[in-house]
Amino acid sequence: MKALVYHGPGKRAWEEKSKPIITDPADAIVRITTTTICGTDLHILKGDLPLVTDGRILGHEGIGIVDEVGPGVSNFRQGDRVLISCVTSCAKCDFCRKGMPSHCRKGGWILGYTIDGTQAEYVRIPHADSSLYAVPDDGDEEALVMLSDILPTGFECGVLNGQVKPGDTVAIVGAGPVGLAVLLTAQFYSPAAIIMIDLDDKRLAAAQLFGATTIVNSTDGKAAERVMAMTGGEGVDVAIEAVGVPATFAICQAIIGAGGHIANVGVHGKPVEFHLEKLWDRNITLTTRLVDTVTTPMLLKVVQSGKLQPKKLVTHRFALNDVMKAYDTFGNAAVESALKVILTSDAPG
Amino acid sequence: MKALVYHGPGKRAWEEKSKPIITDPADAIVRITTTTICGTDLHILKGDLPLVTDGRILGHEGIGIVDEVGPGVSNFRQGDRVLISCVTSCAKCDFCRKGMPSHCRKGGWILGYTIDGTQAEYVRIPHADSSLYAVPDDGDEEALVMLSDILPTGFECGVLNGQVKPGDTVAIVGAGPVGLAVLLTAQFYSPAAIIMIDLDDKRLAAAQLFGATTIVNSTDGKAAERVMAMTGGEGVDVAIEAVGVPATFAICQAIIGAGGHIANVGVHGKPVEFHLEKLWDRNITLTTRLVDTVTTPMLLKVVQSGKLQPKKLVTHRFALNDVMKAYDTFGNAAVESALKVILTSDAPG
Amino acid sequence: MKALVYHGPGKRAWEEKSKPIITDPADAIVRITTTTICGTDLHILKGDLPLVTDGRILGHEGIGIVDEVGPGVSNFRQGDRVLISCVTSCAKCDFCRKGMPSHCRKGGWILGYTIDGTQAEYVRIPHADSSLYAVPDDGDEEALVMLSDILPTGFECGVLNGQVKPGDTVAIVGAGPVGLAVLLTAQFYSPAAIIMIDLDDKRLAAAQLFGATTIVNSTDGKAAERVMAMTGGEGVDVAIEAVGVPATFAICQAIIGAGGHIANVGVHGKPVEFHLEKLWDRNITLTTRLVDTVTTPMLLKVVQSGKLQPKKLVTHRFALNDVMKAYDTFGNAAVESALKVILTSDAPG
Amino acid sequence: MKALVYHGPGKRAWEEKSKPIITDPADAIVRITTTTICGTDLHILKGDLPLVTDGRILGHEGIGIVDEVGPGVSNFRQGDRVLISCVTSCAKCDFCRKGMPSHCRKGGWILGYTIDGTQAEYVRIPHADSSLYAVPDDGDEEALVMLSDILPTGFECGVLNGQVKPGDTVAIVGAGPVGLAVLLTAQFYSPAAIIMIDLDDKRLAAAQLFGATTIVNSTDGKAAERVMAMTGGEGVDVAIEAVGVPATFAICQAIIGAGGHIANVGVHGKPVEFHLEKLWDRNITLTTRLVDTVTTPMLLKVVQSGKLQPKKLVTHRFALNDVMKAYDTFGNAAVESALKVILTSDAPG
Repeated sequence: MKALVYHGPGKRAWEEKSKPIITDPADAIVRITTTTICGTDLHILKGDLPLVTDGRILGHEGIGIVDEVGPGVSNFRQGDRVLISCVTSCAKCDFCRKGMPSHCRKGGWILGYTIDGTQAEYVRIPHADSSLYAVPDDGDEEALVMLSDILPTGFECGVLNGQVKPGDTVAIVGAGPVGLAVLLTAQFYSPAAIIMIDLDDKRLAAAQLFGATTIVNSTDGKAAERVMAMTGGEGVDVAIEAVGVPATFAICQAIIGAGGHIANVGVHGKPVEFHLEKLWDRNITLTTRLVDTVTTPMLLKVVQSGKLQPKKLVTHRFALNDVMKAYDTFGNAAVESALKVILTSDAPG
Repeated sequence: MKALVYHGPGKRAWEEKSKPIITDPADAIVRITTTTICGTDLHILKGDLPLVTDGRILGHEGIGIVDEVGPGVSNFRQGDRVLISCVTSCAKCDFCRKGMPSHCRKGGWILGYTIDGTQAEYVRIPHADSSLYAVPDDGDEEALVMLSDILPTGFECGVLNGQVKPGDTVAIVGAGPVGLAVLLTAQFYSPAAIIMIDLDDKRLAAAQLFGATTIVNSTDGKAAERVMAMTGGEGVDVAIEAVGVPATFAICQAIIGAGGHIANVGVHGKPVEFHLEKLWDRNITLTTRLVDTVTTPMLLKVVQSGKLQPKKLVTHRFALNDVMKAYDTFGNAAVESALKVILTSDAPG
Repeated sequence: MKALVYHGPGKRAWEEKSKPIITDPADAIVRITTTTICGTDLHILKGDLPLVTDGRILGHEGIGIVDEVGPGVSNFRQGDRVLISCVTSCAKCDFCRKGMPSHCRKGGWILGYTIDGTQAEYVRIPHADSSLYAVPDDGDEEALVMLSDILPTGFECGVLNGQVKPGDTVAIVGAGPVGLAVLLTAQFYSPAAIIMIDLDDKRLAAAQLFGATTIVNSTDGKAAERVMAMTGGEGVDVAIEAVGVPATFAICQAIIGAGGHIANVGVHGKPVEFHLEKLWDRNITLTTRLVDTVTTPMLLKVVQSGKLQPKKLVTHRFALNDVMKAYDTFGNAAVESALKVILTSDAPG
Repeated sequence: MKALVYHGPGKRAWEEKSKPIITDPADAIVRITTTTICGTDLHILKGDLPLVTDGRILGHEGIGIVDEVGPGVSNFRQGDRVLISCVTSCAKCDFCRKGMPSHCRKGGWILGYTIDGTQAEYVRIPHADSSLYAVPDDGDEEALVMLSDILPTGFECGVLNGQVKPGDTVAIVGAGPVGLAVLLTAQFYSPAAIIMIDLDDKRLAAAQLFGATTIVNSTDGKAAERVMAMTGGEGVDVAIEAVGVPATFAICQAIIGAGGHIANVGVHGKPVEFHLEKLWDRNITLTTRLVDTVTTPMLLKVVQSGKLQPKKLVTHRFALNDVMKAYDTFGNAAVESALKVILTSDAPG
């Protein structure tokens, strides 16, 4: 089969690999019909994640058709259409049982990271019963593939951890795909205002279409000042960091109101300065989280009910065969105005 | 009347001041029968809190007898024995109404800080109806004066924010009076293990008497290492910072397990380095809080039921007239093995 | 002044009464500009609430202008436009302090019940600081008067107690004004489906306009059966009772899914049969509640943000002088297709 | 092997049955070393549970040694000592994944009910990975077998659902083994008072030894009256029903305070009269629950820490071979002063 393979920093190829096989009774083999590229895949390609080794097939998002299941799989059978979760859950370890499969003793985020991933014609999914979800017959793959990672990430790490509630003033720092996923899912809870902060006017314009009530371009370094002015000096109820650098985390600290919640979504590579000398008496909550994907069943219901339209995030479409081109586009997102790129493969590979 | 007055960094005097009078319909004047000294009073004396001006009467803890009430006070009358909360609550502003009197628009922590305090024969208490609590007839003043500040602080900022639950492994960094208040109130929730970390063996010995299951002297800089070893590399469920310096906050970060809670109780004067590059995917919660004293009614019930014995914290007793000597003792806590010092004044001043 | 006065079962008059005066430092006198009639007022008129005595001015909803305040009132002054809460809160008693002013030791629901109410030119509001809310300059009185009672009732007793969450299937039994208030506010949390059940097709049609995804006319006694069929035999996540009779409560019991929540909103006059023999092992939660109006500040924000449009509930408008006619209309709601009737008085009385 | 077999109402025998075998890859066969008898087993013997058919081996509690595992079992291997949960959890269905294995699509309570149980030399445990728990090397089987059912039942259905918190006044109606399990685990949360209500003075005396602060014999029908007097007419914060008949549920309704929680633990065979006409405005919560055993890992930690000593519940000990005699004793609990009876089998059967 063909697959997108990592060959060390800066090197990727669409090349022939052996089709995966069942290696554990709980495995399923899935033929990929729709997949996409995540910002994390670009990080891997830069060499930022040393656990990813030469030869690894990338990708942790996807929808496909079950091709084969191991004898221990009881929820799915050949021919079922399934959503692949970016987090693999054994469902049996202590972390899985307390709703934290992100730290599953045998899973967690492994796809396209420490085992081969979904940017391929076929993928092996361990612990298939608890790591796949049935796709409804009328499910739109372009919409639902956003449930592999980006929507549960924005929702769980940003919205739920940020405790967004009706009437709140929410600030989201970062209008990339994950920040926009936060924006879409924050609206489940009817906040009164959502302030979107980014450096890129095009992304801010998209944010406005997706429901932001105010946009702030932070290029001039005065974003925090402006948010404080907008809120009469009180600060926001919830500040969600969706970038992953010290400067954006600093904005969150500067704008959080007394009793507020800072929810970190971004992947950070460096420590940040945390202003406990100002915040020790402000009654704030700060959270970090790797997505657990425990809300996937709920998100499926909300997408199917029409109340959430993640398809809005799709800006470009390619055949899976053209994944090298898709990477070029996604890797140049600002110029290309790219949010999410869709890769599809209709016929058996 | 006599009062303990601040006269700029390093200067305090027990001197004559005018007896306070009712200045607002919601005020009460309370004759102090029992008071104590807080670590924060020492900070003020060092000059660390610039809002405290020359001439200010110190103290934000106390029990006394109501001497006079304004026409707007309906819950108390002359002769009632009352507990004074360190936090003044108007009960009507947005923060008070959402259970956050620490940020009361007209109150918060003001006693012995921006208005005259309790280390005096009389004190004026604004918003008396919602800032005083009735003391039961059989209430022990030495025990109950700990409810002015230290017990609600340890309980709300440490135990409640840390979400201590049955079976947890809890680490408390700092075995001073507030850390010990955390230790006492953490036991309300039956954690399986409480690890107490401090530099002072005498305080650690006290902690052991008060219920710590393990003590760790952190002098050698290996506290975090040892806690990780004790927990099989998993880290603790809850880490509570009760000191207020970067080094102790660093221990909390180093020992927190995936899904764990760091609750900051200490008063910090400097920013800290926060290791988001390690913690972004660890699903942790970090909280800060100035005590709201919303749990005072509950703590009163628990003390009266005998399940909490805060009197254990009292190491020294003085007449209120000897408050200058009491400060000498408390200011030299390590040598004197002092935890809380009690000051009493039995007869009308 | 003129007021709507109760004179025993079936008797009401619009007649001259003395203008109320300040009797406690915490009182305010409010000149009514907008008020409305509640289903509970009809119950009183039937003689169902024996605590209401001859001569009582009815009404517990309203917006007006502060005419005078007692010396203990600090949040409001003459000329302020205010929303009157149906629940009076002293803010200082144990119940108020734990967020349950419905059981305030000195207040709770008293307006138009045990003290004179709002269907008058002027009303005395005890504990004004914590029982009135500032109306924004651009606030629409017809919309905001729904926040006196009906919206917080529907939201707190129905939606919050029912724990409605994104993706849920919610059933609301009763499409009267309170049931519709539940319907409007349930949408804050993006349930996937809202099933509205009533006997009246006109009300069901209104429900559909207001966001119900399915309507069920229960006249044939098969409502429960149909809801079970719609949910594949699983039952609903949340069932909200908004009528107050055994038959509607029985529907809730019959359709609740395992792990679901039954929230009672209706005012009941009789015991109900509760099927513990079927429900003991179904992991359900059942709640009752008299509205606390603790969410009024939040509801104000949501109305001002445009996310909630309670004005939809208004079907008829009268001058306050015509309140007798308004009662005729509202008392004949089915024929008149009446939901909420608005009474306004523009000029000083 | 030998097993205790049900042969229709009133008939049981200790007789030869075939040793169970692995029928599904997820199964384990466990050799029983310790088991016990539950009140529910007596109900079955009376014929109250028609799903139990002639020939069924009874028992849903036990500790044993893994004898064999299916190829899909990864958490356990032959020779492991394990605690058997009364609730079988597939870990993969929607209910299991939301923490409600009581309603597991493939499990729930089935042992000794719809499949053969634990009062035998060997038992087959389906979904072994998520239905068994490792027993620590120093674990005391007599204590830990209480974690099969009775302790998680008392804790989850009574204490957690009742939301017991520090300072509360808690009433427990029923001092049988489950009521005593509620009593033991309620103390995890340091309530100020625990009132135990029962008809049997011997059981009440045991309750007092186990931590009840007040006991009430309800034989005279005045239990509710007395509890109201004790609480100054306010009622209790939490009322826990641990019997399962209308009269005891009625006591809970009569004593619950405003804002309080009624938690039903008892197994009911008839509907009850629920006084909505009195309770609709009392802001109460009523819960039902079949135990989910999701707290078993936590309870294991608390037992191992010494903070919970369930062994106190054991009054009689028998060899497994003498199970017929054990049933006689347990079935005559009042006369025998029996709480829990322990059955042990040391050598391989």
